[in-house]
Amino acid sequence: MGRTADYSHQICSVAATLEVVGDPWTLLILRDAFGGVQRFEQWQEKLGVARNVLAARLKSLVGHGVLEKREYSCHPPRYEYLLTPKGRDLWNVLMTMAAWGGRHVYGDLGTPASFIHKACGGHFEPGLICQSCGGEVGPGDLTKAEGECRATVGEAMAETLEKAL
Amino acid sequence: MGRTADYSHQICSVAATLEVVGDPWTLLILRDAFGGVQRFEQWQEKLGVARNVLAARLKSLVGHGVLEKREYSCHPPRYEYLLTPKGRDLWNVLMTMAAWGGRHVYGDLGTPASFIHKACGGHFEPGLICQSCGGEVGPGDLTKAEGECRATVGEAMAETLEKAL
Repeated sequence: MGRTADYSHQICSVAATLEVVGDPWTLLILRDAFGGVQRFEQWQEKLGVARNVLAARLKSLVGHGVLEKREYSCHPPRYEYLLTPKGRDLWNVLMTMAAWGGRHVYGDLGTPASFIHKACGGHFEPGLICQSCGGEVGPGDLTKAEGECRATVGEAMAETLEKAL
Repeated sequence: MGRTADYSHQICSVAATLEVVGDPWTLLILRDAFGGVQRFEQWQEKLGVARNVLAARLKSLVGHGVLEKREYSCHPPRYEYLLTPKGRDLWNVLMTMAAWGGRHVYGDLGTPASFIHKACGGHFEPGLICQSCGGEVGPGDLTKAEGECRATVGEAMAETLEKAL
């Protein structure tokens, strides 16, 4: 059940995301959190994942500030797990993943679930826009620039977590 | 190095994506492919990943039609790996991951790399739009609908791969 990749020595924002949510099952735990799941037993039932794996993933997500653990009953003590703003901000990642899996794995079969955009009534297929100008953006529309930071993922994470304490 | 999660029994487009690219290192291999890496030794050097792990990941990505293996020298035989259209379509996933890691892990430190939107000259931060109407979309803007397909990821994948043969 343990980690099978250590991205902490990479100097990269993609690796930074994978270091937090790249563990097996973690993105499906978060998918279910967006679907309203908040309690251990609900995840366990939906995912069929081993209880020790699920417990370790929830603990890690709480430690990284992606989920917040809250007591909802004190006799006996019972906890639920809620998406924090940091966790809710993973929505874009999950939606782009859902779109790709729908297009390229399910393909002509149709998808198990779809989304309707309330405002226009259309079937939702996500595209990316530049938030500076609102224009739609694809791979050829960007220039990569060296960033200002040479910290590894591990170093950045230590800094971020320290601030959160 | 082996798989640590089997998503093939899930009925879900997110799980479908993870079944193809959710393996450790795989998304970083693809990140580098978008950055122009095409050869085994280049990946090995950039990622510092074990050679057998890298070989297995490349083989799997070719098997899933995300990369295409092409001989670029015949004496001795040498191969390079190019993104297919299916692979290039993962760009949205990688860009949303990069944005999240930049915002929430690197945060105030600044990021190791950034992207400039050529058309507007602005610093690129991705948002999602609905491709039906072009409007920007967030978590509260969609309604989930049951899809038409009840196939598991494994079943869908078998069907898609069979068609590709």
